[in-house]
Amino acid sequence: MNDSTTADKPGFDGDKAAGEAALAAGTSALDELQERLFAASKGGETRNVLLVLQAMDTAGKGGIVRHVVGSVDPQGVELTAFKAPSEEERAHDFLWRIRKALPGPGKIGVFDRSHYEDVLVHRVRGLSPLEEVEKRYGQIVDFERELVASGTVMVKVFLHLSREEQGKRLAERLDRPDKYWKYNPRDVDDRAYWDDYQEAYRIALDKTHTDEAPWFVVPADRKWYARLAVQSLLTQALKKIDPQWPAADFDVAHEQKRLAELG
Amino acid sequence: MNDSTTADKPGFDGDKAAGEAALAAGTSALDELQERLFAASKGGETRNVLLVLQAMDTAGKGGIVRHVVGSVDPQGVELTAFKAPSEEERAHDFLWRIRKALPGPGKIGVFDRSHYEDVLVHRVRGLSPLEEVEKRYGQIVDFERELVASGTVMVKVFLHLSREEQGKRLAERLDRPDKYWKYNPRDVDDRAYWDDYQEAYRIALDKTHTDEAPWFVVPADRKWYARLAVQSLLTQALKKIDPQWPAADFDVAHEQKRLAELG
Repeated sequence: MNDSTTADKPGFDGDKAAGEAALAAGTSALDELQERLFAASKGGETRNVLLVLQAMDTAGKGGIVRHVVGSVDPQGVELTAFKAPSEEERAHDFLWRIRKALPGPGKIGVFDRSHYEDVLVHRVRGLSPLEEVEKRYGQIVDFERELVASGTVMVKVFLHLSREEQGKRLAERLDRPDKYWKYNPRDVDDRAYWDDYQEAYRIALDKTHTDEAPWFVVPADRKWYARLAVQSLLTQALKKIDPQWPAADFDVAHEQKRLAELG
Repeated sequence: MNDSTTADKPGFDGDKAAGEAALAAGTSALDELQERLFAASKGGETRNVLLVLQAMDTAGKGGIVRHVVGSVDPQGVELTAFKAPSEEERAHDFLWRIRKALPGPGKIGVFDRSHYEDVLVHRVRGLSPLEEVEKRYGQIVDFERELVASGTVMVKVFLHLSREEQGKRLAERLDRPDKYWKYNPRDVDDRAYWDDYQEAYRIALDKTHTDEAPWFVVPADRKWYARLAVQSLLTQALKKIDPQWPAADFDVAHEQKRLAELG
């Protein structure tokens, strides 16, 4: 990972105001596609979308959930924030809790952190033996291949933040009493391993970037740009499915007649 | 239930345009209160909100979820749409699946239909013996009293629609191929029992309206009005909790020093 790319804004020419306007303008397309997908699932469509969000602390995962995912109908979204695993979860294979959280047909699943923690923090902090971590990359590739084959469009996003910008954001959380709740001393512990995390991300992205389930490295020093980019990726994923309003599974004329007769 | 009240707009003087502007204007207050509640739960606040939505088909539950609930951060919302119970659910007490779906601390829980189905459709369609239905009102009152005592602010909403307006909305669903997916022949079956449902609602609201967990009958013939009214009820519920940003559970000066030293 190279810090020089974190402030880029590939695919977008404008400034912050233009970016915020573009985000607002893009909402209706995303919203309609999501509604179509949800509707299509009532007619038998089984495909769905899974957005995986990975990043260093403060990179803006929460803002993506709030401002991008939050712009579509909550009924169509299944959001899971993965914390440190419970005792029960640790007793199972690392993909066990992930499988339980997979989105249903027609849904947009969102993982705020994911199975990638098991090759990131586990590698950096040595929570698992290195051989075990090495084995997991292949297991992840197989798992995601299976998901895609069963009809899931995966959107894997790494929000790429610079070390400098993280420093500013952590300092801001410590400056504002209304931001204290977002601050965790462990965030600074992790910051001390910055280079190791960047290396762990580099390896993970390299080993798990496949044609079926590619990674998107989204520059995240500008929050507005990252939101716009993820909105665009989600919209593209839904367009790939191209969901259609389902045909009536009842006789329309007959139902109209029943309704009219009932008054 | 008296149809004459379904087109009212108590507490609001304006027209549709003014109502939509008021809804948009009310979003930021609701949004900030929800964020405060979510934040407070990280500092030990255990209270939460439970919005229960009950209504005849087409009354606009989905629109409330989308336009009112959908305006706050999805991370703070736990939405459950209760369908006809599964075999496993039917094998348990009717409150079993309800308890499993109760919101966590600091969350806004939303029930799209609820335990009230077990005294509404069960009464109208005779799915349970009448003595069983009669017993459930008391069980519901006890259950909700327990919830409120444990820190839940309940907002029970009956979206009150006229028979005439339902007829129009059902006909519209049958006129528009992009609305077919929302139509179910069972909706017309239920419409044939309109008066029985109104009576079942009247009895249920009467028997379960308590000081701790009152019902709000929201006129629903105007969708914009119903949304505005529910937004206002949710905002009031959160104000009742009056959530505060939690104090830092770490030494701010020490963390600032650590961060500065790390660079």
